[in-house]
Amino acid sequence: MEHNLGVIGLGFMGSYHANNAGKVEGMHVRAVYDIREDRVQRGEEMGLLGYRTLDELLADEKIDVVVIATPNLYHPELAVKCLEAGKHVICEKPCTMTLAEFDIIATTAERCQKLFTVHQNRRWDQDYLQVKKAVEAGDLGEVHMFESRIHGKNGRFLEWRDNKELGGGIFLDWAPHLVDQILQIQQEKVVSVYAQMFKVVSNNVEDYAKLLLRFESGCGALIEAGTLCLCNGPRWVVHGNGGSMTIDGLAGKGQIIKDKAHLSDWNMDYIHTAQGPTRTMAPRPVETLEFMDLPSVEGKTDPLDFYRNLVEVLDGKAELIVQPAQVRRVMQIIDAAFESDRTGQSLQVSI
Amino acid sequence: MEHNLGVIGLGFMGSYHANNAGKVEGMHVRAVYDIREDRVQRGEEMGLLGYRTLDELLADEKIDVVVIATPNLYHPELAVKCLEAGKHVICEKPCTMTLAEFDIIATTAERCQKLFTVHQNRRWDQDYLQVKKAVEAGDLGEVHMFESRIHGKNGRFLEWRDNKELGGGIFLDWAPHLVDQILQIQQEKVVSVYAQMFKVVSNNVEDYAKLLLRFESGCGALIEAGTLCLCNGPRWVVHGNGGSMTIDGLAGKGQIIKDKAHLSDWNMDYIHTAQGPTRTMAPRPVETLEFMDLPSVEGKTDPLDFYRNLVEVLDGKAELIVQPAQVRRVMQIIDAAFESDRTGQSLQVSI
Repeated sequence: MEHNLGVIGLGFMGSYHANNAGKVEGMHVRAVYDIREDRVQRGEEMGLLGYRTLDELLADEKIDVVVIATPNLYHPELAVKCLEAGKHVICEKPCTMTLAEFDIIATTAERCQKLFTVHQNRRWDQDYLQVKKAVEAGDLGEVHMFESRIHGKNGRFLEWRDNKELGGGIFLDWAPHLVDQILQIQQEKVVSVYAQMFKVVSNNVEDYAKLLLRFESGCGALIEAGTLCLCNGPRWVVHGNGGSMTIDGLAGKGQIIKDKAHLSDWNMDYIHTAQGPTRTMAPRPVETLEFMDLPSVEGKTDPLDFYRNLVEVLDGKAELIVQPAQVRRVMQIIDAAFESDRTGQSLQVSI
Repeated sequence: MEHNLGVIGLGFMGSYHANNAGKVEGMHVRAVYDIREDRVQRGEEMGLLGYRTLDELLADEKIDVVVIATPNLYHPELAVKCLEAGKHVICEKPCTMTLAEFDIIATTAERCQKLFTVHQNRRWDQDYLQVKKAVEAGDLGEVHMFESRIHGKNGRFLEWRDNKELGGGIFLDWAPHLVDQILQIQQEKVVSVYAQMFKVVSNNVEDYAKLLLRFESGCGALIEAGTLCLCNGPRWVVHGNGGSMTIDGLAGKGQIIKDKAHLSDWNMDYIHTAQGPTRTMAPRPVETLEFMDLPSVEGKTDPLDFYRNLVEVLDGKAELIVQPAQVRRVMQIIDAAFESDRTGQSLQVSI
């Protein structure tokens, strides 16, 4: 069955959807609605129907799915109206600015019995999939610490992302990806949330944030995002009792170093630092370590699979990959992180 | 005036003091006391007087200073006895396992009017001094985040350091240095402490720990130490609103990257990651950045300056560099960190 997509908001990500969703079988990009005339015209130049009001789009009975890619502030109202008009809804991330708003959309979707999902496109990121695969294969033994970082250098935001009211800020922009990925890898409850946020360059929104989570088993996770980190840190660092892994950048270059301590013993030498000797930090014979390439995740990194899954779900042939309940957990943690930063205290949670 | 040092405990660090303290003018290493006969004999082979009981050492009137380098458990009792016997006391770090024990020593020192200090030898570390100098020079603008890491690879401890009762564990071993350094650089009150500790390989003591501090101004600091981090992270990462710096390893290799955004403007391009475009994380024209070498700290990294300062203080010619009040703040934070880990909650403090 052919599904017809309406794109709401032809900005940065709306254009991405308009250009890409139609590449998968069963999905046709039909129309665009934007409050800006220049964007409606651009949509028309792309061969789409251009709508200047939401009502026009909702009245188009051929459109069964919409993707909402406006500034975050407008997501809840638009999503609810679309669901109530009988459309299935894909929402850009962050789906909403608060958990309360998320719940309004989710319960509306249930009531209207329409599909509701969020464009968590970084579920298909190579680096994330490599971490997930290595951890699940036990390459690192039992993992006790995940570090997931995204470091920009430009020190500024474009358009509404510097506007707090519209849903800007680096944490709302990236935490939905970074938290979602961690929750997909470490599948257990989060019990503690502690966050520090900073206005480094921006006067309006947080542009650097650190979030420390702890899971029920004791495992920890550090999530960090910043727009002005001129010495970029690695995208991932993961430590387990059987080894560590690191990945630099979004292109997924890195390595796994496994501990082969069970295979041999060695004398711990000491190193002389300027200030005196240390043994704990001494080097270790290289033959007691195993260096592995990152695992292959070939065939699993096609972002169009997001749309393919959607078509299959609408046709009753598959389960939804990005489930509202999963996004809800992410929103719970985001809510808790903002509260932690505001109060200066950690939150004990069961998320 | 010649000062005569008695070394208590001729283990790893005791041997360091026995070998080095006598290198500075005005300091003579006279004797060693150890409960182990083999070590007393080793001291004698080094040309030192060998004492088999504390009383013998305390009765040696020529000894005016002692350095205590036993397992941590024994520091308080030994320090108090030495002070009450009229000796000046240098304590190895961690000075004590708790703040309460520290206060017992410090108040005894005051009552006895004897000098009391702690061997915070990493005040003379090149990497730390380079960070301090760059931050104080304003090279990074206003700093909002310090990251200070020490990553070992061996995954084990030697001797008593794997014994909780004796004062082992990676956090007690390294936090005294890493926290002390941060407090020397960012001279303001700590208002929030959150820690996560882990028994990764050891069954007895924490061998991986993360500590997140927040200062009154909002500035944050992440301190991390682990014995099994096979992908070693950088020793330092510091981010400010005017730039970042990083230093790898204890040898102090790294760089400073300064933001010259005020000098020019640039169009933010976007990068296509596999999962779609991002602009926030796009690269930046290299001419808008300034790459600087780490500052020179020549002449400031001699660890013997610790002993030189001591001689000058004893001779009434200088102020003590490592002051008990400074070490007390470190112990307050260490106490708070252990409580945070135990309770799973952050602590609001004023330290």
